[in-house]
This record gives sequence, C-alpha cells and structure tokens, in this order.
Amino acid sequence: MSAPGLPVSRFASFSVEGRPGYGLITEAGVIHLSRRFAGEWPTLREVVADNAFGRLLDTAAGLPADFPVEAIAYEIPVPAPEKIICVGVNFPDRNEEYKDGQAAPANPSLFVRFPRSFTGHGQPLIRPPESPQLDYEGEIAIVVGKGGRRIAEKDALDHVAALSLANEGTIRDWVRHAKFNVTQGKNFDRSGAIGPWLVPYTDEGQLADIALQTRVNGEVRQSDRTSRMIFSFRRIINYISTFTTLVPGDVILTGTPTGAGARFDPPVWLKPGDVVEVEADGIGVLRNTVADEG
Amino acid sequence: MSAPGLPVSRFASFSVEGRPGYGLITEAGVIHLSRRFAGEWPTLREVVADNAFGRLLDTAAGLPADFPVEAIAYEIPVPAPEKIICVGVNFPDRNEEYKDGQAAPANPSLFVRFPRSFTGHGQPLIRPPESPQLDYEGEIAIVVGKGGRRIAEKDALDHVAALSLANEGTIRDWVRHAKFNVTQGKNFDRSGAIGPWLVPYTDEGQLADIALQTRVNGEVRQSDRTSRMIFSFRRIINYISTFTTLVPGDVILTGTPTGAGARFDPPVWLKPGDVVEVEADGIGVLRNTVADEG
Repeated sequence: MSAPGLPVSRFASFSVEGRPGYGLITEAGVIHLSRRFAGEWPTLREVVADNAFGRLLDTAAGLPADFPVEAIAYEIPVPAPEKIICVGVNFPDRNEEYKDGQAAPANPSLFVRFPRSFTGHGQPLIRPPESPQLDYEGEIAIVVGKGGRRIAEKDALDHVAALSLANEGTIRDWVRHAKFNVTQGKNFDRSGAIGPWLVPYTDEGQLADIALQTRVNGEVRQSDRTSRMIFSFRRIINYISTFTTLVPGDVILTGTPTGAGARFDPPVWLKPGDVVEVEADGIGVLRNTVADEG
Repeated sequence: MSAPGLPVSRFASFSVEGRPGYGLITEAGVIHLSRRFAGEWPTLREVVADNAFGRLLDTAAGLPADFPVEAIAYEIPVPAPEKIICVGVNFPDRNEEYKDGQAAPANPSLFVRFPRSFTGHGQPLIRPPESPQLDYEGEIAIVVGKGGRRIAEKDALDHVAALSLANEGTIRDWVRHAKFNVTQGKNFDRSGAIGPWLVPYTDEGQLADIALQTRVNGEVRQSDRTSRMIFSFRRIINYISTFTTLVPGDVILTGTPTGAGARFDPPVWLKPGDVVEVEADGIGVLRNTVADEG
C-alpha cells in the first residue's frame, strides 16, 4: 500500500488540559477551533450538522497553531452520536470464509455499537479480563451530515459529511455467546477505536476505490479496496435509512476486509503491547496499542 | 389475569401544548412537575439518576392537578436514553417454539433498539409500507438508576430505578433480512412503544412473580409470569454490565412470552386499527393502536 499523503483537512475531537474540545490538525500543530466557535458549534456533531467545515477552514487559514499535537488526547470524532450502525460481512473473501454454503447475502447484516465501546486514536484498546479473544477489524467510517429517511441510492452520498476510520475491536467468543446476535462481543467498553479525525467529504473519489489496510505490529493482516465491497456506500445508506431516520452525526461502519485474527489457524488474538493500525487512502492512520484493563 | 390496581406513583414524560415535560399521573389529572422542577431535573432521566422520585412525590402530595390526562400526549418515559438493550428469547415456551434442537441458551441473546423505534402510550404504532408483518412483543422494561460495571447479581436490583412496559413491535420479515442480526426488523421508526409511565422500583416483589399479558383487540395473545423467565432480572443486569457500563436512564427490555403473531399458523400480523395492550401487575397497561405510515 503506497503511503498516501495526509488529507489537508483533519478535524479532531480531543481533550486538552482535561477539557473537551475540537480543532484542526495541521503540520504545525493543533488549531483549537472550539475555543473560538463553541458558542456556534459546541462539538463536531454540530459542525457536521451545519456543514460548517468550509467556514472553519476559512477561519483557520490565518491562524497559528495553539499547541503541539502531543498536547491533545484524541477522543472519538463525533461525541455521543445518536447511532453507530455497523455492517457485518461486506467483502467477498470474508463472506466465503464463513463457509456455510450460503450465497452472497441479499441485504447487509447490521448491528449496533454504543459510543462507549470505542476509544480515540492513540488511546489503548482495552482487553477485558473476561476473555483473551480481543480481535481487530479495520473499517471505513462514514459520518452522516444531512439526515433523512428512505434516501435513494442516487442521493445517498449527499448525506455524507465526513469520513473517518474505525477499528471495530471485538471480543470474539462473546460474539457467539448467545443464540443469536453479536451485541455483547461488539460492545465491551473501549474495545474498539474511531478516528483519528474527520476528513470532510467532498467527492465520491474519496470513497469509490480506496485501499483499506490493517496492520498489527507492522504486519499486514487485512488489505482490500472499497471497490470490492459487497454493499456499496450508497446501498448501505439507502438500506439503513429505509427503517430508521438518519440524523447528523450518525456513524456507519462499513465492514472489514478478510484477515481478522479469528480467521487464522490457530486464531491469533491481540495481546497487551500490540500496535494496531488501520489505514485508508486519503483518510489517515488510526493507531492504538492494546492494554489489559487496569 | 386479574385487574391489578394502578400503582400509586406514575411518572410520565409527555408533551403538552406542544412542549415536552413530565409529571405525576393521578386520579384527578396530571401534576406538572417539570414546570416546577425543570431547573433541578430537566427530564425524567435526571430524576432517575438522582433517585428523586421520593422528593417529587412529597412535593406533589399537596398539589392539585394542573390539567386532565387527556391534555397530554405521552412520550417514551426516559427521553433519549443512552442505551436500550433488549433480551431475546427469555421465556421457556418461546425458546421451544424455535424448534431448532438447541438446549436452553447459556447466555441471553441481546440486541439494541434506538429510541426512535419507539413511540409513547396512546400514540400509533407505525406499520411501514415496506412490509405487512408488523408484530407485537409485550415486555417489562427496567430503567437503570445507579450506573455501574460488572454488577453482581446480589446487588443488581439496587441499580433499578423504575419499571415500565414495552411493546417491542417488530417487522418480522426484516428480522431475517440478512445473514445474522435482527437490527433492521427491530428498528423501524415508531414501530414499538414504551410506557405509559415509570413506576419507581422499591421492592423485589414488584418484579419477582408478576403477570405479563399482551392483548390484541381484547384477545389474549401472550400471558406468562416473570418467575418463569429463563434469565432473571438480576442475571440480565449482571450479564449486560459485564461488557458495558450501565448509566442512569438506560432501559433494558427483558423479553417477551410466547404467542407473538409470527407463531400462529398462518401468522397473524397487526393491521391498521388494531389495539394492542401490554399489561403487567403493578405497572399498568400500555395501549397503542396501529396505523399505516402517513
């Protein structure tokens, strides 16, 4: 995977000196936008809802950095989104790996994660004492700007405000803990990550055929391209909005390529100290270490 | 099922004259508590978090009703809870009805519903144009007061602030739309209901062995007792809090007895004009009509 240039516009949520905020991440450091605009847009959710990235960029253009990137602790980019909806099997090889004799599915499998199941870029992914089976799943996250219901595929991308990355960290044995559903194995507190930032969405080329890769301690474990997704970004938005009204700030995690640790023989789980990186062209690298719950 | 007396303390969220509020439902009418206490407790979520039911009752004791019950439109009792977690198969007959040869499960199946998939008492359940298979599932809802993680079974009920009822309205064919998970069939906007109100939880006798019944147009369709639940209230709280931190206002829907419309041969779906009632001893009756989406 060629190293793509970093996107120009990187809007992050963070805490700095113990207080929440958001800002623009630049080569020179962090421009603290919420210090200036919290009245108008308290968080990046309101920025997304108001499609205010352009106005913030215009303002930021003349400003110096307020502090170095090292001064911030990244948080998930949209604080407390109303919904985080995840697409299950969405890459062809991964579907074949299930080896259950079924044809490619007609509709996407969907499940829900709570915001507290994620942490920010650079924070530890937490392995709970209940299981050693912490696994990674690198994904592209799309953030809804304009809400809607029954959004047509042709209009779907007009509802995307921004892109980000996710590591859909999973406690694999707890996914199969019960008769059906994966809720519990997908919702251990801070077992996954979203970030590092939001990249404003402006052009379908940002999504249409980009490389998505997950590395563990530098070793490539997942690598695929979005052009191979079973369910396109347009179809996912169309399908989800058929049953639920999407609102600004909603996050959709769009599925992971083959190669999660569960697929190895024997399976390879994440362990404390491992470094997991999820990278996609034009979005960046989401990096987290693994730690046992303290 | 004998008609139980109404509970003395019934705290409802509602809109009145187009504005949201909460209050006490009495024989004489509604005592508008949020008019008096919105500064301290903006919604019933803050009441629940602060365990303020007793103080509100003390105040309300000397007050006349502010308006008749007919003046309010009920809303779901906790507005915008962080989480609504639903337990799947949780009554023995229902498990057998799945006829898949599996023994009773070791752990509860769990799924998630978004608040917008519910409406309040007295509001129409919405049948969407995508499917005629709107089905009912009557359940007892418990509302978390004191948050926590890894809550022991012996302490679990100390974390319950209030009880309510739910009709976990389901679009049955959309539950099986994809390879796994039930997210989509459980999350059509306003396909279910929660309410009518919160009854403060004070005593395990309120939950231990109460009758739960669902009627459609007066005909009993589901009828069972909580003493027969596969996973007890204590176990459910213990299990869920193993992976996620429960916070005040979280709602847990604890499973439905056998007899949903999907189990009839041929299946019997809800249709516009049907009246669905979910009743439980000491909590009340949650009543909704069915309407096609307008």
